[in-house]
Amino acid sequence: MLKLFDLAGADDNRRFSPYCWRAKLALAHKGLPVETVPWRFTEKDRIAASGQGRVPVLVDGDKWVVDSWTIANYLEDTYPDRPSLFGGGAGRALSHFYVGWADTVLNPAIARLILRDVFDRLHAKDQAYFRQSREARYGQTLEQVVADRDKNLPAFRARLSPLRVALQGQPFLAGASPLHADYIVFGSFQWARATSAFELLATDDVVHAWRERMLDLYDGMARKAPAEAA
Amino acid sequence: MLKLFDLAGADDNRRFSPYCWRAKLALAHKGLPVETVPWRFTEKDRIAASGQGRVPVLVDGDKWVVDSWTIANYLEDTYPDRPSLFGGGAGRALSHFYVGWADTVLNPAIARLILRDVFDRLHAKDQAYFRQSREARYGQTLEQVVADRDKNLPAFRARLSPLRVALQGQPFLAGASPLHADYIVFGSFQWARATSAFELLATDDVVHAWRERMLDLYDGMARKAPAEAA
Repeated sequence: MLKLFDLAGADDNRRFSPYCWRAKLALAHKGLPVETVPWRFTEKDRIAASGQGRVPVLVDGDKWVVDSWTIANYLEDTYPDRPSLFGGGAGRALSHFYVGWADTVLNPAIARLILRDVFDRLHAKDQAYFRQSREARYGQTLEQVVADRDKNLPAFRARLSPLRVALQGQPFLAGASPLHADYIVFGSFQWARATSAFELLATDDVVHAWRERMLDLYDGMARKAPAEAA
Repeated sequence: MLKLFDLAGADDNRRFSPYCWRAKLALAHKGLPVETVPWRFTEKDRIAASGQGRVPVLVDGDKWVVDSWTIANYLEDTYPDRPSLFGGGAGRALSHFYVGWADTVLNPAIARLILRDVFDRLHAKDQAYFRQSREARYGQTLEQVVADRDKNLPAFRARLSPLRVALQGQPFLAGASPLHADYIVFGSFQWARATSAFELLATDDVVHAWRERMLDLYDGMARKAPAEAA
């Protein structure tokens, strides 16, 4: 069976990495059974065979595949008879921009709202590593990173405008049904949901309605996962 | 023949609307000859038959089609035997997010760099309308809107990060060859190029290299158009 190293918190079942959620939803989309293995930031040795130290890492027989975008492309190419993640060559290329937007705009913006809460969800052995590495990156304490989150929430929500335009007249970013682009963006919201009670979206937001649809996919796979927020 | 009402400046040949450029490139992609008719902001009466007052307006026989996204969809559906603008249904749905990003992120950011230069390119009869409507929208004079543009340029360039990720390993946003998503984003850069000598992109930026490829399309259609910047 396929195996996926999946970032976990103090609780083995608390899976919160946005990148791992992209991979897990891609696997579900393909209908591929997978064993997800809880992994912590400080367990670099367990994925050393992948040649790097981050998850998701997919193990398919003797192949180790790293990076959620590479994994999605690997699944599409290796299991072409399963439902497509991209809806064709153009859809694949066009999905790459979603990676760029989620990684460089959405995730940094969400981090400013939840990073301190993520810390609370971590396994004790990861907390020092997480605090040190993130505080070095931000030049601020975790507490300072999120200090203005209530004030920053309207600006965060304004940054989601491209999603609101995209969802006009279509239930998913990919149209009538979801494709990998939806998973790319949803992973970020699931990261927040799994770690923080801070509510990112107003209930009358079309992005909220889309997130609800995403939570329902694959028998409520994401909705059933341990979370802090509704 | 198809007819497109196309925003023009003081010079009939100075065509600068980002939305009209999307439509013109979509028409070129489809290989559809079109007569582009110079039109000014204050000539609402000339497009009254469209039921609204903005361009692009496409006239195809007795049909008047407005809005660049609606026009692209109209061309795709009406001329299905011509080269596809979307590369299939998934590509079409996935392209909608590009509209959202260009309209709500890219265009407002570019406006902060070039809006005063746009004013200089306008037909005299449009200038009072443009100044009044834009200054009401911004709550600032045109001069104030762009006053800090040198200081804001690094932040503008940082906002293009999603494009840089998207273009990793592919020459166009849509892959090996351009589709409408490329035209959506390129229209914004062509708007700047047609109106302002202010250089938006560093020459070593992959977005610059992409823009060069876009300028070369269709026998240099966009490159040959009257412009202020290289």
